[in-house]
Amino acid sequence: MISKILVPTDGSNAAQKAARYAVDLAKKLKASVIALSVIDNRSFVSQTVPAGKTSRHLIEPIEDYLREAAEAYAVEIKKLCDKNGVRSKIVITSGHPVEDIVKEAARAKVNLIIMGSHGKSALAAAVLGSVTYGVIHKETKIPVLIVRRG
Amino acid sequence: MISKILVPTDGSNAAQKAARYAVDLAKKLKASVIALSVIDNRSFVSQTVPAGKTSRHLIEPIEDYLREAAEAYAVEIKKLCDKNGVRSKIVITSGHPVEDIVKEAARAKVNLIIMGSHGKSALAAAVLGSVTYGVIHKETKIPVLIVRRG
Repeated sequence: MISKILVPTDGSNAAQKAARYAVDLAKKLKASVIALSVIDNRSFVSQTVPAGKTSRHLIEPIEDYLREAAEAYAVEIKKLCDKNGVRSKIVITSGHPVEDIVKEAARAKVNLIIMGSHGKSALAAAVLGSVTYGVIHKETKIPVLIVRRG
Repeated sequence: MISKILVPTDGSNAAQKAARYAVDLAKKLKASVIALSVIDNRSFVSQTVPAGKTSRHLIEPIEDYLREAAEAYAVEIKKLCDKNGVRSKIVITSGHPVEDIVKEAARAKVNLIIMGSHGKSALAAAVLGSVTYGVIHKETKIPVLIVRRG
């Protein structure tokens, strides 16, 4: 019944904790894992005003840096899967984290999304991070398992 | 790692769907299930104003009715567990659903809570029911798996 698990990551402690939980569960269920890392394009697009004057030479290095980081987060999960004999795949996208998580979950027909309660950008005081909050509140039919920080 | 799963139920379709999901998962993981049914005491206490004039002879039949219903919901999950060779236990409490779910999860030291996205009293338009919303937003360290309606 659970044969494919989506594990979004932003490299945060909570995401790493969720990834360990997901790999453990996948191992027990003989399920495969998709490690998804979304390059949050709001982090550079939103800071380029006015749009007409956007300097590509300023944005490209930021994009490259974010892409490298995103890949590294996903590779970390892939390594954990390899170590545990769990089949896995890496997906890197560039866009809005909530939208891309829900889109990838549908596209890959996963049976479960496992994610941390808080991502990197979450306020310490918030009970849920905005990406997790967003995914839970999306009209998706896919079950979501939230691993708490702590 | 997942050895004990808490499955709260209010008898709604979403709760039944979550229970089937939980029993399947418990079977695969050789985990046990606690079927929790909370008699929501707000449903009769809140309608007795003024408190001093509460007529016991009016409240008791409602309490009895709610208790019977609560037991029936939990028994249904226990039967499903028995059919699948999953060890299970029934817990019935009377109080506030969110508080009682979180309290029982801590008391029984479960590793996972599996619940439906919507309970019986949820508005059709809401993305999450108030009890599920409440449990997710509680400061608990226990992972929560939300099974969507539909």
